[in-house]
Amino acid sequence: MNFKLTLQYDGTDFHGWQIQDELRTVQGELTKALSLIEGQSVTVHGSGRTDAGVHAEGQVANINLRREISCEKLRLAINANVDKDVRVLLVETVSDDFHARYSARGKTYIYRVLNSAVVSPFWVRYAHHDARLLDVDRMKSAARLFLGQHDWTAFSAAQSDVEGRVRTLSQLDIEETNDQRAHGRLLTIRISADGFLRYMVRSIAGALMAVGRSDLDNSAIDEAISNGNRHRMITTAPACGLTLLSVRYDEDR
Amino acid sequence: MNFKLTLQYDGTDFHGWQIQDELRTVQGELTKALSLIEGQSVTVHGSGRTDAGVHAEGQVANINLRREISCEKLRLAINANVDKDVRVLLVETVSDDFHARYSARGKTYIYRVLNSAVVSPFWVRYAHHDARLLDVDRMKSAARLFLGQHDWTAFSAAQSDVEGRVRTLSQLDIEETNDQRAHGRLLTIRISADGFLRYMVRSIAGALMAVGRSDLDNSAIDEAISNGNRHRMITTAPACGLTLLSVRYDEDR
Repeated sequence: MNFKLTLQYDGTDFHGWQIQDELRTVQGELTKALSLIEGQSVTVHGSGRTDAGVHAEGQVANINLRREISCEKLRLAINANVDKDVRVLLVETVSDDFHARYSARGKTYIYRVLNSAVVSPFWVRYAHHDARLLDVDRMKSAARLFLGQHDWTAFSAAQSDVEGRVRTLSQLDIEETNDQRAHGRLLTIRISADGFLRYMVRSIAGALMAVGRSDLDNSAIDEAISNGNRHRMITTAPACGLTLLSVRYDEDR
Repeated sequence: MNFKLTLQYDGTDFHGWQIQDELRTVQGELTKALSLIEGQSVTVHGSGRTDAGVHAEGQVANINLRREISCEKLRLAINANVDKDVRVLLVETVSDDFHARYSARGKTYIYRVLNSAVVSPFWVRYAHHDARLLDVDRMKSAARLFLGQHDWTAFSAAQSDVEGRVRTLSQLDIEETNDQRAHGRLLTIRISADGFLRYMVRSIAGALMAVGRSDLDNSAIDEAISNGNRHRMITTAPACGLTLLSVRYDEDR
């Protein structure tokens, strides 16, 4: 039976998603728990990797099990065998051809920036802190330039060995809320696309913050998007602010 | 000069507020940082102790320093010398007779309960998790019984060596929100009083949850408040759900 798992993790104490010898990773912890439940080695297919320190509110994975088990029992069994910084929210049975990575049609990430004098201990794990006042109107104006189909060379890891670098961005919103616990302003950048290159969200977030500080203007963004020239003020924003919010599949409609 | 500090901490990795040999405590960390800044031993007076695992969004302390330093510099200096799970939000100069504990006129605590099938990794440090559906209307009805001046013997630590056990509760509200990150219901119990006994908020929270599960009814609460008889279903709710929200002083008006 093919099972689809929807899961959350606090990435702070993980060396990312992908299984690695000797290091604590989300895929590694899930593989250990599931192999115990199945009684033999199980392969956990994720929708994609997340880097060290990156969180997930709605990561998706799939696993094939021979053992007969109900979705609810499987959910409880996995959660009983992993630490509390990773939780399976939902288990569903899916058709045999469902694959968390190859069946994915799009993803949504959020990047959180705490824009306040002091970083609250309650956000330090989950948001990037910037004490300089960011101009959100400037950021919103620049955000529009990213929408649509582009080659994202200027906004991805230089060494990235993927073949195509063209992706289509369908949403890029910036929400501004006053967070009571932080006694400050929380900016939530929400980005949806049909796929992402490595460091793409963090580079876009870094560029938007540079625009918010007036270190960068729209023409530099335009130049980077059109010609692939990464401006020196476009930095890769820290991992802690990044969260994989959801993965979209055809059957979601 | 007498300085008033308003501070936050994530209590998860602290053995409570009060300074203790060999153990990491909030008062201990602040004392170390401040003694370094002052160049000699400094006493940190808190508004009161918080137990291990209890958080603060608005704890108050005061310190007397001989050294001349501006409020902003002092705030930065303390934050540079303590870990990120404790942060000074605000430093103010106050009159010599201000004492964080003796000048306090009241406090507000919140107790958070995540009432959902699965505990989100993003709330596991900051909320108590109860998977059983709690009846909030029952809890709100019972909450009214706690208001006013009472002897809180049935709702405090048995060994507590304080002299009086009479306190006046001025607010007890239960707010229900749908938390997106938790994919579930978050209950926030907010309690204000002129003072609290040890375990008082956690006992009231435990009683309210027992009412919400229909393990306890209003007459048992009434009996406990009127006669000091603690019902066996009144338990002390876990520390992780508890947060000291604010401390009230006369000059706040």
